[in-house]
Amino acid sequence: MKHTIATKVYYEDTDAGGVMYHASHIRFMERSRTEFIDQLGTTVAELQKNGLFFIVTHIDIYYRAPAYLGDTLTVSTEIAELKKVSMSLKQEITRGDTLVAEATITIALTDKERLIRLPAGILSQLGGAG
Amino acid sequence: MKHTIATKVYYEDTDAGGVMYHASHIRFMERSRTEFIDQLGTTVAELQKNGLFFIVTHIDIYYRAPAYLGDTLTVSTEIAELKKVSMSLKQEITRGDTLVAEATITIALTDKERLIRLPAGILSQLGGAG
Amino acid sequence: MKHTIATKVYYEDTDAGGVMYHASHIRFMERSRTEFIDQLGTTVAELQKNGLFFIVTHIDIYYRAPAYLGDTLTVSTEIAELKKVSMSLKQEITRGDTLVAEATITIALTDKERLIRLPAGILSQLGGAG
Amino acid sequence: MKHTIATKVYYEDTDAGGVMYHASHIRFMERSRTEFIDQLGTTVAELQKNGLFFIVTHIDIYYRAPAYLGDTLTVSTEIAELKKVSMSLKQEITRGDTLVAEATITIALTDKERLIRLPAGILSQLGGAG
Repeated sequence: MKHTIATKVYYEDTDAGGVMYHASHIRFMERSRTEFIDQLGTTVAELQKNGLFFIVTHIDIYYRAPAYLGDTLTVSTEIAELKKVSMSLKQEITRGDTLVAEATITIALTDKERLIRLPAGILSQLGGAG
Repeated sequence: MKHTIATKVYYEDTDAGGVMYHASHIRFMERSRTEFIDQLGTTVAELQKNGLFFIVTHIDIYYRAPAYLGDTLTVSTEIAELKKVSMSLKQEITRGDTLVAEATITIALTDKERLIRLPAGILSQLGGAG
Repeated sequence: MKHTIATKVYYEDTDAGGVMYHASHIRFMERSRTEFIDQLGTTVAELQKNGLFFIVTHIDIYYRAPAYLGDTLTVSTEIAELKKVSMSLKQEITRGDTLVAEATITIALTDKERLIRLPAGILSQLGGAG
Repeated sequence: MKHTIATKVYYEDTDAGGVMYHASHIRFMERSRTEFIDQLGTTVAELQKNGLFFIVTHIDIYYRAPAYLGDTLTVSTEIAELKKVSMSLKQEITRGDTLVAEATITIALTDKERLIRLPAGILSQLGGAG
């Protein structure tokens, strides 16, 4: 189950090197993760209203090719590993056939005091044990 | 001729006050201006490849209501005043019937040495004299 | 009473036009406002812990000259007008003798329900009636 | 040779979860890398004027503890591995004794056409063979 979004590179995403700034890839990947989670039934915004937040605990990202102003990029998210209090996601940014960046990103749910088990609704949809 | 885009508020756009960060409105308005210009025939990315850049010379923005994580906002752009080397745009951000922010923003085209007359193609589409 | 900070332009602050991105000036001015307020006795971070936030209600900014990667800029803040629930600040960004941007920015204090009178400690230091 | 900078967390660096946004750590680490390189003799800004840019090819970052609005953080950079066309840096963000994040980040120098050997001045200062 690979989920994708399309997102465009604006001036805000670039830097004086003439390419997409390397932290913008991180932001784009979060947009894709948010849409991935939102379509599972409980949105990130609803979780936040209930005092629950996904935090990022690890990012391992390889930058493979530059992206440029005006590019329309595809950002994908799929489950790499699902645990009770965290999930690892495989994420890619591509422009047509070109791989721009690929990452493994681990996120966990927290109420700011401690890590929280992932909601049963999310786990069941992702095939986890709950 | 009012041009609109829809854009969603992600974590990257918010701050610890729990609302959309005030510089994010500025970024969202630029996304809308870019789409406004791109549909006139010469894209911002093509202009950049030819060494031409729109610079912002003035922003007058009123923040009317907060926006929140997960909101889908409409960002509009329309011509307020068209001159030979600059244009003033009226831009609004709304969430349904709620006005989130409204601004008048002046931009000019430059080759980094001096201001450049707006391309005839853009001017003619916008009803200017060229 | 003019308060200034020095801040450097990194890649994160620039765009593919080769200059400082226009929303970065807005962020730099907030850094200066934060330092201006912090030295009055109650820090922005302490206010936030008490559920109080400064919100920006109006920005009127003129961009006068480009700034570049590696520039060290001075960002100044001084009171333009002081009211019971808001203050207008005059802010400038300069690089040596060059004026990069100048703005009048109005901020107000809120507990997210309604506007709050500015703390007496802040008002007294700024010469307001309290 | 461990190089450090101090940097403060402003609203721009936080998100609606009430903590420092995870891409802000990436930006803070670049500020530290820039200062690390700048003090080696050839600044990042000078390299850019000569058409040379450091690009990030790999980031492996662990987020160990949240950072908050108003925090003053220390961001450190030291060489992990030095090659002819790239270098890996060990970077940490700390708040007092608390480790906020730690990363290994690989950067390479490019003229946008191909990777460039690191300047002899930089290599010699870092103890590389040149």
